[in-house]
Amino acid sequence: MIDRIAILGTGLLGTSAGLALRAAGFRGTITGWNRGAEGAQTTLAMGAIDSIATDALQAAHSSQVVLLAVPIYATLDWMEQLAPILGPEHLVTDVGSTKLQITAAAGRLYNSPDRAGFLPGHPMAGKERGGAALGDANLFRGAVWLFTDDPAWQRSPASAALAEDWRKWVGAMGSKTIDIDAARHDELVGWVSHLPQFVATALSALLEEEVGDAPELKDVGGRALREMTRLGASPYSMWRDIAYTNTEAVERSLHALEQRLAHLRENLRTPGLRDEFEQANRFRRE
Amino acid sequence: MIDRIAILGTGLLGTSAGLALRAAGFRGTITGWNRGAEGAQTTLAMGAIDSIATDALQAAHSSQVVLLAVPIYATLDWMEQLAPILGPEHLVTDVGSTKLQITAAAGRLYNSPDRAGFLPGHPMAGKERGGAALGDANLFRGAVWLFTDDPAWQRSPASAALAEDWRKWVGAMGSKTIDIDAARHDELVGWVSHLPQFVATALSALLEEEVGDAPELKDVGGRALREMTRLGASPYSMWRDIAYTNTEAVERSLHALEQRLAHLRENLRTPGLRDEFEQANRFRRE
Repeated sequence: MIDRIAILGTGLLGTSAGLALRAAGFRGTITGWNRGAEGAQTTLAMGAIDSIATDALQAAHSSQVVLLAVPIYATLDWMEQLAPILGPEHLVTDVGSTKLQITAAAGRLYNSPDRAGFLPGHPMAGKERGGAALGDANLFRGAVWLFTDDPAWQRSPASAALAEDWRKWVGAMGSKTIDIDAARHDELVGWVSHLPQFVATALSALLEEEVGDAPELKDVGGRALREMTRLGASPYSMWRDIAYTNTEAVERSLHALEQRLAHLRENLRTPGLRDEFEQANRFRRE
Repeated sequence: MIDRIAILGTGLLGTSAGLALRAAGFRGTITGWNRGAEGAQTTLAMGAIDSIATDALQAAHSSQVVLLAVPIYATLDWMEQLAPILGPEHLVTDVGSTKLQITAAAGRLYNSPDRAGFLPGHPMAGKERGGAALGDANLFRGAVWLFTDDPAWQRSPASAALAEDWRKWVGAMGSKTIDIDAARHDELVGWVSHLPQFVATALSALLEEEVGDAPELKDVGGRALREMTRLGASPYSMWRDIAYTNTEAVERSLHALEQRLAHLRENLRTPGLRDEFEQANRFRRE
């Protein structure tokens, strides 16, 4: 069904999607566009795309499915630019980490019978460092890929069929798809994705201040320290947009953790510490 | 030189030490004692010890080196019980996670020319779950093994030679040894080991409260969430003693992180967020 895909943004996720589609048996054409041409060259050399597009709008118009694989505000910009030039025979989808604003824009600019369809998506996969060179055909294997479709949308039959087919390809890339309301999505990822990231950032920044001048002392922490600070390498460029578009949920989760840490600190020598460990053990029960 | 070792406590660390010594070519005898006899049976079956001792004091007296591989307060208890029955031909060493109290007891009860030697040790290795069955000959490979010897101690020549030989075996098990002052040790591990553990515990306990009733939602977090909460499975039984014997350092590090999280929360939409990410990136630079 889908046999012409344009990937706008050939960083880690865009490149990985191209590689994963090929690995899953996709035989159509994949063209790639990137703001910095260097990234696209790497993606081409890796076989994730067949060609580099010089004009993103042209590439989008010539394809059936447009995958937006750029940060959130860039996704919102492309949604505005693409809506007037695409039609009901097109589907646009994305990989943005927050979904409320993107889903609202999808309802406003897409998903009526005379317009292109837009399927808001979010693969729960990534690496702490970005870039095409780290692209990986197995990045999405075993991951959850969330969709925040609005049941009220009236897509054109052609874009609805493309959306169904895209979901099948997501499954073929190894992901489990889950449908969720956009507001609930942003609240949930505030807890299970954004909070862990901001904790790792704060912990890494604090430890850089406290022990950063003695690199050999980082070795002392071993595997536990490496794991708890791995996400400290994550780039601001991606997380800025998340912080801006999910501010309230992130504030709420950070504040709750601050209170939890204070409670634990005040109970280091009381039975309250046992309760905290037992509650944590329950989260990790198998 | 060393050819008779007694391991008191055949849990994860004791069993792993026995296996690692064998893997490193140790050909002497290793006897094991455990409070619960079941654990020692597993350890024996795994080949980490040659025999199970029914009398720990007897086993210690018959060996040259006694490895205490029990929680901190149990280590302090054994130090009291062993000191009067051992002599200058013995060496006791341990694997306790805090070193100030153990090192103070070592100075008081050991390490004079007419007494047994005591070498306070701390391998920075472990797993989030304990028990003999998880024992691993490679547990110490690539890890740092800290020692908090006091330069003022006057060990007997025999126990000093055993201590030198034990350091060689630690190297043969694959660890890098580092000597550090006991007070500095406890302060440092407060940052790079205890803080990450207590953060993982608080984060896991909080998430159990927020999303624990929807197990499928844990999958959404993916690798990042799994890593940031792995230590949530750690047992209270071990960490209680750490919280009690390094309270001030842990309080200090937790309080510093609470403030750092509040700062980040207040700067989700300011350039302060960029500064935090850049500081965190520096900690993870390669």
